[in-house]
Amino acid sequence: MPPITYDLEPTNFQFVDPKTGQRQIPFGEYLFQRVLDAGTNSIFGVPGDFNLPLLEYLYEPQLVKQGLRWIGNCNELNAAYAADGYSRYSNKIGCLITTYGVGELSAMNGIAGAFAEGCKVLHIVGVARSADSRCKEFSQRNLHHLVPQLHDANFKGPNHKVYYDMVKDRVCCSAEYLEDINLACDQVDKVIRDIYKFSKPGYIFVPADFVNLTVPVTNLLNTPSITLQDCIEPAPASVVKDLTSMILEAVYNSTTPAIVGDVLTDRYGANDLLNELIKITGMWNFSTVSGKTIIDESNPTYMGLYNGEEGPTVVKNRFMECDLVLHFGVEINEVNSGHYTTQYKPGCQLIEFHPTYIRFSIPGTTKQEIFKDVHFLPILKEILQTIDATKLNKQYPPNVKAFRTAELEFHHDPNAKIVTQTFIQNKFCDYINPGDVIVCETGSVQFAMRDLVFPSQVKYISQGFFLSIGMALPAALGVGIAMQDFPDAHLNGKLSSKPRLILLEGDGAAQMTIQELTSFIRFDVPVEIVLWNNNGYTIERAILGPTRSYNDVMPWDWTKLFAAFGDFGSKSTTNTIVETPDEFTQKMTELKEGKKQTSIELLEVKLETLDYPKQLKHMVESAKVKKVGAMKI
Amino acid sequence: MPPITYDLEPTNFQFVDPKTGQRQIPFGEYLFQRVLDAGTNSIFGVPGDFNLPLLEYLYEPQLVKQGLRWIGNCNELNAAYAADGYSRYSNKIGCLITTYGVGELSAMNGIAGAFAEGCKVLHIVGVARSADSRCKEFSQRNLHHLVPQLHDANFKGPNHKVYYDMVKDRVCCSAEYLEDINLACDQVDKVIRDIYKFSKPGYIFVPADFVNLTVPVTNLLNTPSITLQDCIEPAPASVVKDLTSMILEAVYNSTTPAIVGDVLTDRYGANDLLNELIKITGMWNFSTVSGKTIIDESNPTYMGLYNGEEGPTVVKNRFMECDLVLHFGVEINEVNSGHYTTQYKPGCQLIEFHPTYIRFSIPGTTKQEIFKDVHFLPILKEILQTIDATKLNKQYPPNVKAFRTAELEFHHDPNAKIVTQTFIQNKFCDYINPGDVIVCETGSVQFAMRDLVFPSQVKYISQGFFLSIGMALPAALGVGIAMQDFPDAHLNGKLSSKPRLILLEGDGAAQMTIQELTSFIRFDVPVEIVLWNNNGYTIERAILGPTRSYNDVMPWDWTKLFAAFGDFGSKSTTNTIVETPDEFTQKMTELKEGKKQTSIELLEVKLETLDYPKQLKHMVESAKVKKVGAMKI
Repeated sequence: MPPITYDLEPTNFQFVDPKTGQRQIPFGEYLFQRVLDAGTNSIFGVPGDFNLPLLEYLYEPQLVKQGLRWIGNCNELNAAYAADGYSRYSNKIGCLITTYGVGELSAMNGIAGAFAEGCKVLHIVGVARSADSRCKEFSQRNLHHLVPQLHDANFKGPNHKVYYDMVKDRVCCSAEYLEDINLACDQVDKVIRDIYKFSKPGYIFVPADFVNLTVPVTNLLNTPSITLQDCIEPAPASVVKDLTSMILEAVYNSTTPAIVGDVLTDRYGANDLLNELIKITGMWNFSTVSGKTIIDESNPTYMGLYNGEEGPTVVKNRFMECDLVLHFGVEINEVNSGHYTTQYKPGCQLIEFHPTYIRFSIPGTTKQEIFKDVHFLPILKEILQTIDATKLNKQYPPNVKAFRTAELEFHHDPNAKIVTQTFIQNKFCDYINPGDVIVCETGSVQFAMRDLVFPSQVKYISQGFFLSIGMALPAALGVGIAMQDFPDAHLNGKLSSKPRLILLEGDGAAQMTIQELTSFIRFDVPVEIVLWNNNGYTIERAILGPTRSYNDVMPWDWTKLFAAFGDFGSKSTTNTIVETPDEFTQKMTELKEGKKQTSIELLEVKLETLDYPKQLKHMVESAKVKKVGAMKI
Repeated sequence: MPPITYDLEPTNFQFVDPKTGQRQIPFGEYLFQRVLDAGTNSIFGVPGDFNLPLLEYLYEPQLVKQGLRWIGNCNELNAAYAADGYSRYSNKIGCLITTYGVGELSAMNGIAGAFAEGCKVLHIVGVARSADSRCKEFSQRNLHHLVPQLHDANFKGPNHKVYYDMVKDRVCCSAEYLEDINLACDQVDKVIRDIYKFSKPGYIFVPADFVNLTVPVTNLLNTPSITLQDCIEPAPASVVKDLTSMILEAVYNSTTPAIVGDVLTDRYGANDLLNELIKITGMWNFSTVSGKTIIDESNPTYMGLYNGEEGPTVVKNRFMECDLVLHFGVEINEVNSGHYTTQYKPGCQLIEFHPTYIRFSIPGTTKQEIFKDVHFLPILKEILQTIDATKLNKQYPPNVKAFRTAELEFHHDPNAKIVTQTFIQNKFCDYINPGDVIVCETGSVQFAMRDLVFPSQVKYISQGFFLSIGMALPAALGVGIAMQDFPDAHLNGKLSSKPRLILLEGDGAAQMTIQELTSFIRFDVPVEIVLWNNNGYTIERAILGPTRSYNDVMPWDWTKLFAAFGDFGSKSTTNTIVETPDEFTQKMTELKEGKKQTSIELLEVKLETLDYPKQLKHMVESAKVKKVGAMKI
C-alpha cells in the first residue's frame, strides 16, 4: 500500500463527513480540545520533527480562546518536571509534548518520578507516520530517532513501538500507541480518564500523519469535560454507608483518636474535606513526609509530622497516645514510614483510607479486614455528612498542646557568623506568609524543612520519595505556570497577602537543570529562589565520602546566571549573595513584606560544606544501625 | 534470612580465601580493574547513594596508578553523551556510573543514541542491596528511586529489576543485573566483551552491597586485558581466503572500482587499513554521512560524500561511473542513504563489508549472495596482504579530478554584512588545520558541513543518524577527556600543529545541556566553541513553522556563561561576539594559527534566523516530494 500523503499545513476549518453528515475536526484539534476539557491550559515540551504537525494546532483560534498555550522548555527532562509541578499545584493534568526517542527518553526520569509520587502527567509523544509503519517498504527503513534492531539491522526494519514497550506497565498507568484513526479519539479519552483514576502518568503516542486527519466530534458532544471526580468509581451506596458506620462507631468509641493526612488525600482533591473533618471534630492530627501541608499545620490540634523512629520523639510520644488512627490517602514507602518503623499504641485500631481499599486492623490481634475496590473519597464525604460531633468521647492527656517548631530544640548558636541549618530551622517559618507556596529540592535542606510547622494554607511541594535531585527547579516553573492558570487554587480562605512562590534549591541539584531558570524570565513567573550553596552534594557527604571529590561540584557564581540567561540589564531579576544570619533575616523579611525589587529574586546563601540538619544525621545513623546501609537518599 | 551487613569503608587491602588459598580482592576493585583492562581511564557520571560504596574504589592507589580518574558531570544525560564522545574519539569503551532509577533513566536517551550509532558505552548502575532483594521483609518495601507497583503497591513489593527490564534487548547489546557474587566477575567480563563485539552499549547493574565483598582474581590473571581485537570472532581462514579471492577477482575485472568508507569501519578500528588500501590502489573513494572523515578526504582520488539523491549531483555523477562498489562498514539507514535513494551504475557490482556478513550483488540481476557470520576486518587485512596493484585495470573517465569543495557552488554574496551559511561553507575549511577534531551538533550547520572536503587527518564527530540535539556539547567534553587520555590517537602521521578540539554548536541545542560547559574549565579541556546563534530551532523552522513561537528559544548572552560557570576573572576562557564575515575570518585565523588567548575560546556567531544551507532545503523538499512528510530531522 502506498504511503498516505498529507498536507503539512494545519486544517483551519471544520467540515462534515459526506457519508454520515457528521461534523468532523482534525485529530490534532481534537487532542488539544481534550487536554482543555480535562482542565489543563498550559502544555510544556520541546518541538521535534515528529511533533511539529501537532504543534501547529496550538494556534487554532478556538483553542487559544479557551486558554491553550505552549510553554517551551530548554529540554525534555525539564518539561516533564514542569508538567509534574503543574499537576502538583493544580491537581489537574500536567501535559508535555516530546518527539520520538530523543525527546521522550530524555523525559523518562521525570515521568518515573511522577509515577512514583502519584502525579497526573500526560506525555504526548510525536512518532513516525502510521502510514510508514503499515507500509512494508517504509516499515523496513531505519528511521532517525529510532533505535535499529541489534541483529540484522541492515535487513530487518526497526520496532516502531520499542519505546512504547519500554514504558508500558512500568512507569505509566495507561499507554496508547495510536494505529487506527477510527479508535484514536476513544484512546485519548481513555488515557486521560486513567490518569485521573490512578493519579499516575499516561502516554499517548501520536503518529505525525494522524494530526491532520479528521475525526468525529461525538465524544466532545457527549462528554464536554473530563474531571477528576468523573473518574473516581464509587462503591455501591450501601457499602459506603456500612463502612462509614463502622468507622464512626470506632471514632465514637475512641478516647484518643487521630487523623493522619497522607499524600493520596491531596491527589484525589480531598484536602479541604479532611481539614473540615479536623475542624468539626478537633481530633489530634499528624502530617507525613509525602503528605506535608495537606493538613493545615496551623490548626489547633496539629501534633506534628509522624515519621516513626526517624521523626522527633515529641511527635512520636503524642502519636503513641492514640487508640485510633484514621490514615487518609495512605502511601506506604520507606521514606514515608521512617524506613518502616511506624508504631502504634498497643490495642490501637488503625483504619487506612486508600483509593482502592479501606483497611481495618483488628485491635489486639495481627488480623485485619480489607474492603477492596472502595475509594476513600465517597467515604470521607459520607463521614462529614453523618458524623455527630457530640458523640465524640475524646479524653486526650491533659496539658498536651499543639506541636510547635520550638519543641525541636535546635541548639542554635545565636552568635554564629554564618547561616547554618539550625538557624534556618529556627527562623524559616518567620519569613513565610500564610498561603505561600514552597517548592523544596531533594537535599539536606529538605530534611531541615520536614518537621517545621508551617503557617496556615501554605502549600509545600517536594519530591519526598522518588528523590531525584534537580527536579525542584523546573517543577517550580510548572507550579508558577499553574499559579498563573489557576490563581489561589490552593487556598480555601481569603488572605491578606498574595501567595508567593518560593523555591528552596541546592547547588549540586541546581546544576542538573539550571537552564530552566531562563523560563521564569521568558514566561513572567514571579519566584523567590533561595539557593543553598554548600559546595556540592552535601546530602551524599552525610552518607558516604564527606570529603571525597566525587561529592564536589564546580563552584559557580550563581548571581551571574540570570544575566546570561536573558535578563539583559537586570530588568526582571535581583541577585543577592547572603553570608550572615543578619543579611538573611533582612532580605527574607523584605521579601515577606512584599518589598521585592523585581519579580524574580535569587538569594545565594552560603552554608558550610558539612553542615546538615540532625534529621538527616539521624536518618543516616538509624539506617546504619538497621544495617540497610548507605541506601537512604 | 537477615539482611547482610557490610562496612561502608572501602577495603584497602587484598587477602586470601582461607578455603582455596586463592588471592581475593573487593568486587568494586575488580570492576574498575576490568574497566582499566579494557583500555578506559576516565569514568563519567554522577554520585548517588546506591553507587557511593562503588565510587569509594576510585581512590584505590593501585587503580589510580593505572590512570583511573573520575569525571563528575552536572547530570546523567550529559555523562552518557560524554561517555559516547570518549568512545567516538578513542574507540575504547566510554564508561559512566549512575544511580538506581533517577540517574540511569536520565541517561537513557544518551545510551539509546550510542546504541543507534554503534558506540561503545558501559553504563554501570548502582542498585539496591542484593541482600534486600533476596530478603522477604526488605523485598516487600517500596524503596526510594524505585517505582512501586501500579496495583496494590501498599501490599506488594516493587520489581527491583524494572529498569533492567526496560533497557534489556532494546537499547543495549548486553545487560547483567548482578545477583550472585560468585558469577559477578564473569558477568562483568561478558558485558565488556559484548560491547566490543557489537560496538553497542552494555549495562551492569551493581548492588550496593556487592562492592565490598571479595572475589577471586582468576580472570585478571587469565586475561589481563580485553581489547577490541580480542572480541572479533574471525571466520575460518579458508572462508577468509576464498572470499578475498572473489573480491580481488571483482577488483581486477573492474575498470571503475570505488571504495565507500562507512561508519562501522571506524567502530572496528579499520580506518588506517582502509586508507592504506586506497593509497595502494588509487581507487576512487567516497564518504558517507555517518562515516565522514573515516576516509582521509585529502587523498588524491577522493570523490566526495555520496548521499543518493540528496547529495551533490557532481558527486552522484562520479559514483554512477563506478562498475564496482566496495562498501566498507556499511550501515543502512535513512540519513546515510539519502532516504533510501542510493543508486548504482547499471550492471555495477556491490560488495558490502559488515561485521556480521559479506554481501555480493549479482550484476544484472536482483539476486545476491550473502555470507553470514563473516567479519569484514580479517577480510580487509587479507585483501591488503594479497592484493597485486599491477593487476588493477582502472580506466576511469579522463579529466575527472578529486572532488573539491568549490564544486558545490555556494552562491555567496562577497558583500554580505553578516555571516551566512554559504559563507561558512565557502570558508570553513580554510580555518581548519590537518588533524583537527571537529565535533558538530545536530542542526542546520551539520548540513553545511556534510559535503565539505576536510584537510588531512581531520576527525569529524557528529550524531548524524540518531540526531539528538544537545548531544554535541557534552560529547565534546568526552572527546576532550579522551584526547587527554590518548593524545593524537586519531593521527596516523606526524603533524606540524597540535590537534585542536573544535565544537560547532547551535543555540537551541546548546540550551539543552549548557551546564556541562563548566566541566571544560573544571577538567582543563582546551576547546574552541563556535556557537551559531540563529535564534532558535532553525532546523525545525526549515521543516515546519518557520515563524512559529514553538521554534523560538529565550535569547541568551552566551559570552557571559563562563563567568557564571566558574571562570572567575576570565582566567581560562575568552568569549567573543562575531557579527561580520571579516570578524569571523580574523578570529578563526588567529585560532588556526594558535594565537589563542586562553585554552577555552567561545565565539558567538550571529546568523539570520531563517538562513539554512541548501543541503537542508534540498533534504526537506525531496522529503516532501517523497511524501514522507516532516520526518527528517
